[in-house]
Amino acid sequence: MKTFGIITKKNKPEALDLTRAIVAWLDKKGIRTLVDREVAESIGHPHFVERENMPPNVDLIIVLGGDGTLLSVARQKSIASTPILGINLGGLGFLTETLKEETFQALEKVVGGDFETDKRLMLKATVCRGGKLVGESTVLNDVVINKGALARIIDLETHIDGGYLATFKADGLILSTPTGSTAYSLAAGGPIVYPSLDSIIMNPICPHTLTNRPLVLPDSSEIRIILKSANQDVHITLDGQEGMPLNGEDIVEVRKAGSHIHLIKSSSKTYFELLRTKLRWGER
Amino acid sequence: MKTFGIITKKNKPEALDLTRAIVAWLDKKGIRTLVDREVAESIGHPHFVERENMPPNVDLIIVLGGDGTLLSVARQKSIASTPILGINLGGLGFLTETLKEETFQALEKVVGGDFETDKRLMLKATVCRGGKLVGESTVLNDVVINKGALARIIDLETHIDGGYLATFKADGLILSTPTGSTAYSLAAGGPIVYPSLDSIIMNPICPHTLTNRPLVLPDSSEIRIILKSANQDVHITLDGQEGMPLNGEDIVEVRKAGSHIHLIKSSSKTYFELLRTKLRWGER
Amino acid sequence: MKTFGIITKKNKPEALDLTRAIVAWLDKKGIRTLVDREVAESIGHPHFVERENMPPNVDLIIVLGGDGTLLSVARQKSIASTPILGINLGGLGFLTETLKEETFQALEKVVGGDFETDKRLMLKATVCRGGKLVGESTVLNDVVINKGALARIIDLETHIDGGYLATFKADGLILSTPTGSTAYSLAAGGPIVYPSLDSIIMNPICPHTLTNRPLVLPDSSEIRIILKSANQDVHITLDGQEGMPLNGEDIVEVRKAGSHIHLIKSSSKTYFELLRTKLRWGER
Amino acid sequence: MKTFGIITKKNKPEALDLTRAIVAWLDKKGIRTLVDREVAESIGHPHFVERENMPPNVDLIIVLGGDGTLLSVARQKSIASTPILGINLGGLGFLTETLKEETFQALEKVVGGDFETDKRLMLKATVCRGGKLVGESTVLNDVVINKGALARIIDLETHIDGGYLATFKADGLILSTPTGSTAYSLAAGGPIVYPSLDSIIMNPICPHTLTNRPLVLPDSSEIRIILKSANQDVHITLDGQEGMPLNGEDIVEVRKAGSHIHLIKSSSKTYFELLRTKLRWGER
Repeated sequence: MKTFGIITKKNKPEALDLTRAIVAWLDKKGIRTLVDREVAESIGHPHFVERENMPPNVDLIIVLGGDGTLLSVARQKSIASTPILGINLGGLGFLTETLKEETFQALEKVVGGDFETDKRLMLKATVCRGGKLVGESTVLNDVVINKGALARIIDLETHIDGGYLATFKADGLILSTPTGSTAYSLAAGGPIVYPSLDSIIMNPICPHTLTNRPLVLPDSSEIRIILKSANQDVHITLDGQEGMPLNGEDIVEVRKAGSHIHLIKSSSKTYFELLRTKLRWGER
Repeated sequence: MKTFGIITKKNKPEALDLTRAIVAWLDKKGIRTLVDREVAESIGHPHFVERENMPPNVDLIIVLGGDGTLLSVARQKSIASTPILGINLGGLGFLTETLKEETFQALEKVVGGDFETDKRLMLKATVCRGGKLVGESTVLNDVVINKGALARIIDLETHIDGGYLATFKADGLILSTPTGSTAYSLAAGGPIVYPSLDSIIMNPICPHTLTNRPLVLPDSSEIRIILKSANQDVHITLDGQEGMPLNGEDIVEVRKAGSHIHLIKSSSKTYFELLRTKLRWGER
Repeated sequence: MKTFGIITKKNKPEALDLTRAIVAWLDKKGIRTLVDREVAESIGHPHFVERENMPPNVDLIIVLGGDGTLLSVARQKSIASTPILGINLGGLGFLTETLKEETFQALEKVVGGDFETDKRLMLKATVCRGGKLVGESTVLNDVVINKGALARIIDLETHIDGGYLATFKADGLILSTPTGSTAYSLAAGGPIVYPSLDSIIMNPICPHTLTNRPLVLPDSSEIRIILKSANQDVHITLDGQEGMPLNGEDIVEVRKAGSHIHLIKSSSKTYFELLRTKLRWGER
Repeated sequence: MKTFGIITKKNKPEALDLTRAIVAWLDKKGIRTLVDREVAESIGHPHFVERENMPPNVDLIIVLGGDGTLLSVARQKSIASTPILGINLGGLGFLTETLKEETFQALEKVVGGDFETDKRLMLKATVCRGGKLVGESTVLNDVVINKGALARIIDLETHIDGGYLATFKADGLILSTPTGSTAYSLAAGGPIVYPSLDSIIMNPICPHTLTNRPLVLPDSSEIRIILKSANQDVHITLDGQEGMPLNGEDIVEVRKAGSHIHLIKSSSKTYFELLRTKLRWGER
């Protein structure tokens, strides 16, 4: 008997109704569901799971919400390779490609095994302070080092595979997956990188050096960044959702995570259609 | 009898020596000097002035330091039209064009009245909250509204001369003078604007809207920005030196200040030489 | 008795009908019309004028077409200050702000003297070869020096007001008016400059020097460009409509023209509405 | 017995001397040399080869010149996998990393088999007109479709792997290898892509659509571009060295070539050092 996990965006009444409907629909198909605790309580579903701690043995995860909800699930799911179906409750997401009204059509295919997944690169970031590991996370979109609004420009000494690259004088630095290339990195002037291209985009934020340009690196790159500015308000943020403050001489290391996530592809839209729809890309 | 004010960068021992030498040199020329209090005490000079409160009746102000020191003087000097001579203790500044070794040569000309000044536009920014004025300042470089490192993208509803312009979805927004066009605005992708061109550059920081481009407006423009994002860490910063937090629905208004500042021009360098030297502009 | 000139876009049947209707409408108001020869013949109108040679004594010029048609009229009209009403037969133009369906409403106001004009800067370009003037023109949008598709990168030595600026290594160089800032210069990464801001935008095309950025200069600037690349396919183009080949060591000089043109403002749209509509500026 | 081919940049007297010295040095090591015909005649060397037709059985090719010379050799060498040693007679090249003064040190290693090669992606471009193949070439840097200086903006309808992408309204379009990402594509605003990352960069030139951004695609992509503008001066150029005119409705197809080229790596410089040296990348 199969088990599907369901993670639902918080504080969206309509999301509860859809969750209830999905649970009932899957039940008829003989599929057991684990719903995140808060939502399970709201809809009176007996089988729940901690939102931040999806067990590795579920066969598939359904995310109801937007790209933000999916990002938060993807970060915890970094180890496993469970397929994820993202259903967007609002418009259309880069990660949650299935529209609300396509839900059961998509589930029918998924239950029948008629689906393909997109393997998406994830990055692992660690923070070391005085030789000790003080932070570690996995991201699907990006690792960002960013100064606060009142801080002065920061110096980021950057090494790749043990060799010196450059010292960025900038507001910050983005290390992005191809998936994240249409998120913050794009706003900072980065290129759009096709999701399957295993690569890391390194993109300074407002560099004070006119010669800086975004760099697309192989995903085998081991990137080390040393914050050379002391006593400044600087943070590392992960997928724009979690963060921690950095001190001078902190060392951030970014490399590919041990596994990819597996997003279930929409059968009706290509990546380029997403680009055109979401970014008005190529539109006059 | 003339009086010159002298403002010296703090915590620079060499700056004290140079201040002492300038005081002595001017004394021989029959010119009285007012030195900022801290430095006056250090060098045992009897006539001092509060650093943040230069009296309006000095005939000329000498700034010893870098562009940062000059910016901090310029902001308080917004009302008056006293000529300012900027002497750079480090390399070469956009605002402090006179090199340390050119000090007495430059003073000779200044004392002899053989100098020209550059009139530079300044901007006045006000912040209103719930109908009450809660902040006001004058800047020589830029007014920046900027989100903190952990905040989400912010919405800035912008009006010009009472008409709606656009709602920027971005990390922030820069309103820059031509003087400031080679500072932060340049890092954010803005154009270089010749200092005498009375205009205001409006430049979003990492806009999430691909169609946004920097806008160069007449200096008669009255710009009103309403922060539409509540409960976010957002600040307004002035010349990158002062700042205050903004709340949702705060209204920032930016327009030209009542007076320009008057920078004494270097006799040996043109603006385009500065561009080439400071920015390696046009260099391969 | 007043005389209005009418210039109509060629090869547009609907344009002939509208021209005929305007002529009849103005005739009833006691206004004489001069129609460009080709169109006059087509619609059997007795009073015609040479398209390229509008006489200076007309009281107002009506342009029926798109921005391209208006640009071609503006170039010949550089001397005079006759108001120009641009009626767009297609969508909406930056220069031809009046829509087809607003024609008679706009004419009513114009005939009643109830209109304002926008003074727009024009640029004059000259080409000198071996000390002799070989070309001269006036533009409303831009002067572009551009290499051919098969030519190698070119070197353009540039001086402003007699002082050396830089030698651009690029595909070309754009000198644009504020009016032209939303045309080709924008495509080459230039800023949007408010039309009334008397300034010249200098913008290299695909510069091979990463430090190059667009420059906004006062309209008093005298710009001199020397083509340092011999035996290459290089052209100067004027408003994208006329052009001539350049030889090595040819000198192009660009400065503001002796007069502005006077565009009749649409009463219903602001410049910022045009930006939003035409460029989707600021749209997500 | 081994045979090395030598291709020498034309019209460089010093290049002849170096060629002669290399031939003599290799001869002592028992290595036979084939020199391109023109140079062979100049230096009186009995074994020559046609410049444009290097035989596939040489063991190694030495290119004396700059990146341009190497590009022209690489295009003909697309089929084979012969290692290429690029010696730069001028400064330092992205492709010709060995400096003149390092020649014999480099040859010593090469002859001793002590070298590594970099596999570099090449692209194959074909042009079809009315269903017939009218042009075909292989490039190491880029395929560029570009309008002439006097032509109007062109429309390029673009498909990837059979699916519609977008219709670019632009001066042209660049399809670049990672190797070419530091050449013309960089000037057009493209990202720097690490040479080993098998990908194709698609980058419009001066797009009139503000939402267009460079796109980094997998090297498995089959790109089809249809020129939708008739009667315009449009060319396709290959590595900036060869070209042919395009007609309306011509179809350009770009995909990866059947083989990579193998560049012998400099033992003394990393790619990032090249970036810093050649582009002043990251320099203030």
